Amino acid sequence: MTNFDETRSRFQIPDGVIYLDGNSLGPLPRGVQARAAEVMQHDWGTQLITAWNKAGWMDLPRRVGDRVGGLIGAPAGSVVMGDTLSVKVFQALSAALKLSGDRKVILSDTGNFPSDLYMAQGLIAALDQGHQLRTVAPEAVTEALSEDVAVLMLTHVDYRTGRMHDMAALTQKAQALGIVVIWDLAHSAGAVPVDLTGAGPEFAVGCTYKYLNGGPGAPAFIYVRPDLQDTAFPVLSGWLGHEAPFAFDADYRPAAGIERMRCGTPPVIQMSVLDAALDAWDGVTIAEVRAQSIALSQRFIAAVEAACPDLTLVSPRDPLQRGSQVSFAFEHGYPAMQALIARGVIGDFRAPDIMRFGITPLYLSADDIDAAAAQLAAIVNDRLWDSDQYRARNAVT
Amino acid sequence: MTNFDETRSRFQIPDGVIYLDGNSLGPLPRGVQARAAEVMQHDWGTQLITAWNKAGWMDLPRRVGDRVGGLIGAPAGSVVMGDTLSVKVFQALSAALKLSGDRKVILSDTGNFPSDLYMAQGLIAALDQGHQLRTVAPEAVTEALSEDVAVLMLTHVDYRTGRMHDMAALTQKAQALGIVVIWDLAHSAGAVPVDLTGAGPEFAVGCTYKYLNGGPGAPAFIYVRPDLQDTAFPVLSGWLGHEAPFAFDADYRPAAGIERMRCGTPPVIQMSVLDAALDAWDGVTIAEVRAQSIALSQRFIAAVEAACPDLTLVSPRDPLQRGSQVSFAFEHGYPAMQALIARGVIGDFRAPDIMRFGITPLYLSADDIDAAAAQLAAIVNDRLWDSDQYRARNAVT
Repeated sequence: MTNFDETRSRFQIPDGVIYLDGNSLGPLPRGVQARAAEVMQHDWGTQLITAWNKAGWMDLPRRVGDRVGGLIGAPAGSVVMGDTLSVKVFQALSAALKLSGDRKVILSDTGNFPSDLYMAQGLIAALDQGHQLRTVAPEAVTEALSEDVAVLMLTHVDYRTGRMHDMAALTQKAQALGIVVIWDLAHSAGAVPVDLTGAGPEFAVGCTYKYLNGGPGAPAFIYVRPDLQDTAFPVLSGWLGHEAPFAFDADYRPAAGIERMRCGTPPVIQMSVLDAALDAWDGVTIAEVRAQSIALSQRFIAAVEAACPDLTLVSPRDPLQRGSQVSFAFEHGYPAMQALIARGVIGDFRAPDIMRFGITPLYLSADDIDAAAAQLAAIVNDRLWDSDQYRARNAVT
Repeated sequence: MTNFDETRSRFQIPDGVIYLDGNSLGPLPRGVQARAAEVMQHDWGTQLITAWNKAGWMDLPRRVGDRVGGLIGAPAGSVVMGDTLSVKVFQALSAALKLSGDRKVILSDTGNFPSDLYMAQGLIAALDQGHQLRTVAPEAVTEALSEDVAVLMLTHVDYRTGRMHDMAALTQKAQALGIVVIWDLAHSAGAVPVDLTGAGPEFAVGCTYKYLNGGPGAPAFIYVRPDLQDTAFPVLSGWLGHEAPFAFDADYRPAAGIERMRCGTPPVIQMSVLDAALDAWDGVTIAEVRAQSIALSQRFIAAVEAACPDLTLVSPRDPLQRGSQVSFAFEHGYPAMQALIARGVIGDFRAPDIMRFGITPLYLSADDIDAAAAQLAAIVNDRLWDSDQYRARNAVT
């Protein structure tokens, strides 16, 4: 059974800080600096170009992909790393549309992260084939599934509210109607159990700098269901997705399997940092993390609601319908969050009025939760963001 | 005037190694490890999410872009970093096609790097609008320019032969015929003088891990001519290319200027390493590097031709038509290159029979050139790759 006091020691958390923003950027895992130094000093510095083979750089996207796959219920060989999440959305959506025949509607919801919607808009404009992006409220997705929908593209956990879709049920209903399904796991990987094999979507994508602690701009991932890997259309047909990159043929021939979703030369340093960051999961199960996340979240909600009647929970109250974050609406949310950050409790704010708190058991304890709730109550109830004292403190942080 | 003995000290070159593969992966500049450690330990480790603003992460792609722009004749605000070169080719080509009206032909040459051609093929397949990729021999590009061509997409310096196109003349002739022009500067940036402002192409792209020494998988760059920046079509319409990313609007509105060519969250660690690597150019002019590159290249060609009659120069003999590499064809090029690498002289091999040598004055001296040529002659003339001794050595390296 996981000892969460021990897992906390795997991260460098600054003294005096309670970090509730791991849903935006995970903190620094202790091992990553040594790994980065090794990649630079030894591999790059002494092996130079030969490190692509000798140090295993060329295979990193696949090897790290398998490690990420293990956290999201994906079999070995079904996940590959690279690019940014936005680019991976573009890849998945392009491939999904090619599987969709003549249907023209991409269905998403208004809680999706905007960049996913933007990438769809850019692809639609480029294709100029009459595709349409239809967005409905998260609660209305199920009833919006219909036979004119080509692709259902959703983010599993809503970045603002933490609301979590029922991946298995939506996937099943969509596929029964002939709809191809893409899940964005940005706020799921490392946060909640995900069973891609069981749920059966055609594609999934995600980032690794949130709950997987891969560092700022860490590489993204893409999953393609194994039975589709050899036919999925690789719109970004770069040389490292070629069947034989070093043959330098004039014509693109997609590699077999997930490799075709690779594109250009991978960011080796950043990918190695992510690889080392994943060591924080050694001996930890996502089921244990989930159970502890729910316990900490319920504790935080209870404490805040008891002490701060002006704050309104906007996350689902049922933990089974919520990812690993808790969000409250508050009229003065922006300055209140600034005041909270100035006191060392780091969450974040999303317009128009949402205070967001990421719950990350690997490095957050029940004591942290209690202290964070107490600080929040003091700020809210004493309107500390109005005080000269707060303004002075905030000016220098 | 640049002291090339001093610039050599800016790099970590392993003892006993003569590195002639900086056209594939530049060596480790000395300052980059400290910078990476600072980004991880201080920025990420202590500032956490607030580092996006406090440590200037959010602006890095633009600030580093300006530094790269300074080496390729591009004004401030016309270059932005991110993604891989293949993705930047896709962005530039998509935008170029949108500027091209009803024309359907993308013209390139058979010397272009395959990934550029592959990305064009993927885009054409996705668009399904009857576009066509037409490739001709490098020498035939000028006469292949015609009014049915939509886009001319070329790599300035051929990755195999080092043959260099006349950027200004081809751009001028193409544009006179209404053709939109994209230059890939992968083997030009940091290698030869480039004057994008003077030559006037609509787009340019390139990578930074070759002559700019940014490390394995360092971010790529894209240039858009200033008069087109506010109209260029951003097919990869990610949130960081949005006019107001943190408004989290549902609809994409492209940012003004080059910013719209940003897409997802930038790889901060890798971008910072590149930023530090560019310090190797402090006080160095590209004109001096070019003059020294020509001197070293002529010296290498003369020495190899004098000693190795079985090798045939496949790079242009005229240095003004050649980038910063020298290539020889040799029937036994592959094992000969392996033998050379085993002796510490690192070049590379490209099928079917090309031995490639990058000439990089920042860290290569005339003595290095002489020693490399002597080793090559010994291997070629004594057929050292046939010997048991070589095979034994090669097996352990």
